[in-house]
Amino acid sequence: MASRIVIALGGNALQKQGEASAIDQQKEAVQTARQLVPLIAQGHQIVIVHGNGPQVGDILLHEEAINTSENPTMPLDSCGAMSQGSIGYWLQQAIGNELKKQGIDMPVATVLTQTVVDSADVAFQNPSKPIGPFYASESEARTAAEARKFVVKEDSGRGWRRVVPSPMPKSIVEKPVIEELINKGYLVIAAGGGGVPVVETDDGFKGVEAVIDKDMSAAVMADMIDAETLIILTSVDAVTIHFRKPDETALHRVTVEEMQHYCDTQEFGAGSMMPKVLASIAFVQKKRGRRKTIIGSLDKVQQSIAGETGTIIS
Amino acid sequence: MASRIVIALGGNALQKQGEASAIDQQKEAVQTARQLVPLIAQGHQIVIVHGNGPQVGDILLHEEAINTSENPTMPLDSCGAMSQGSIGYWLQQAIGNELKKQGIDMPVATVLTQTVVDSADVAFQNPSKPIGPFYASESEARTAAEARKFVVKEDSGRGWRRVVPSPMPKSIVEKPVIEELINKGYLVIAAGGGGVPVVETDDGFKGVEAVIDKDMSAAVMADMIDAETLIILTSVDAVTIHFRKPDETALHRVTVEEMQHYCDTQEFGAGSMMPKVLASIAFVQKKRGRRKTIIGSLDKVQQSIAGETGTIIS
Repeated sequence: MASRIVIALGGNALQKQGEASAIDQQKEAVQTARQLVPLIAQGHQIVIVHGNGPQVGDILLHEEAINTSENPTMPLDSCGAMSQGSIGYWLQQAIGNELKKQGIDMPVATVLTQTVVDSADVAFQNPSKPIGPFYASESEARTAAEARKFVVKEDSGRGWRRVVPSPMPKSIVEKPVIEELINKGYLVIAAGGGGVPVVETDDGFKGVEAVIDKDMSAAVMADMIDAETLIILTSVDAVTIHFRKPDETALHRVTVEEMQHYCDTQEFGAGSMMPKVLASIAFVQKKRGRRKTIIGSLDKVQQSIAGETGTIIS
Repeated sequence: MASRIVIALGGNALQKQGEASAIDQQKEAVQTARQLVPLIAQGHQIVIVHGNGPQVGDILLHEEAINTSENPTMPLDSCGAMSQGSIGYWLQQAIGNELKKQGIDMPVATVLTQTVVDSADVAFQNPSKPIGPFYASESEARTAAEARKFVVKEDSGRGWRRVVPSPMPKSIVEKPVIEELINKGYLVIAAGGGGVPVVETDDGFKGVEAVIDKDMSAAVMADMIDAETLIILTSVDAVTIHFRKPDETALHRVTVEEMQHYCDTQEFGAGSMMPKVLASIAFVQKKRGRRKTIIGSLDKVQQSIAGETGTIIS
């Protein structure tokens, strides 16, 4: 049965460890496309929201490598937009080619997306997300921070890095065009990297140097277009509790209340599974009974949709 | 009277000499938006095709600055897609904000675009467009060329650089989505930098390392969506003949035949005005009587559309 689905695709669904070249990432995009096409072929209305962690990190390192008045380093919002360009291109080409090869007549479109965040978000008072290069020393980091007006912190014993805020997404500026296109039968790639973070000012939208969790943006997208299903694809087959303990248990069908309980008892890693679970809860609890979130792996997306595997929160 | 219009916007409509920062380019985008909004407000169906010369050059220099297996230099097609992301973001934000400020309810969308070129295009046998950094010497250039499998040439006495092919655009892959959106009242930004160049293979579309003239792509776009008007905006108010001679004359209303004659007598610079004139002729001559091309400056776009200034080819 056809329904409206938002798929959140991890940034490492495209970039594997040590395989960061465009050719490697494009090969990976072809694999991703092959795994998604059977689902797409069922005739659902689909929006793909992809991550950009490794890719925007790479762009930022390149941008930081030259910073002259003739060729200045681009700020994070522009780098995010750049990553929407490159990743969107790789994905739309790979998926478009695969659909054509399988005789499926479904056009693909990548929509450049801005995501609104609240300038009063507490995240702006406490930048916490490390990005860009490691500095050689604390003093070098502090000098850079002063000159460029940003915040640096020590990153898990690995050295000093710039940190940026990770505010919560509030809405997707390009929601109307995305909905227009899925209604017309397009497969839409949008809100890449969570979308370019913008705040509302008296002069209109304005980019901010921040990163947005792409699963949270996918949940906001799914809510705004009133999707039935949010699929968060990651590297594991299901969410587990008692992680890495003898009684580790994979969750299959769980309620919002159960998931909330596991959050409260800190079952999930703050940087990894927690945001996915919180995004799932946020999406489902707004329309109980109608919505579900599936957290599972890309290579089992078919079985997950069929309810055979993955963690299904409803 | 409302009509369908393709606007080709020079890459330097965003980046002025020595003002390459994102802030400067975004300020420039706001100026560009202010000049375009009165035209947009007339209710035309509009597609904006922007150049990316200075921007993709800057991206490429950054990309060339680091080339390791962990963080490899991105190829030209991916860099082009990146520039569609950043420039599209700046433009769509600036135009969207300006429309809102003036109380005009018109949504803006940037569509990531691939442009098909012919793998048998003679340009692939004779790469001629210089891009990226200057090498310190001919031998360094030749070593890089051998290692990275590309072609280098001496660039107008300024040093050795990589050269890439500049094939003719044949068609726009994302034409259906672009047409869908303008029909629905969207202002569409598409085929940035002429579009990412792709060739058709047995496996589908595949990116190639080439650059496409954005005016030529704009002409192909205008033809494919059957626009009435192609507006090529540049830094001069009109096309002139006898350039920089005592009898220099600005052309106001000219026929395709007259323009073709001036081309044959080599009135126009190969790297500057010639491609604009050729793009104009290609677009107009396919549907005489119905189509026109205007070549003029951004700050007089209103007068040009009204037929008061600019060079009008019909």
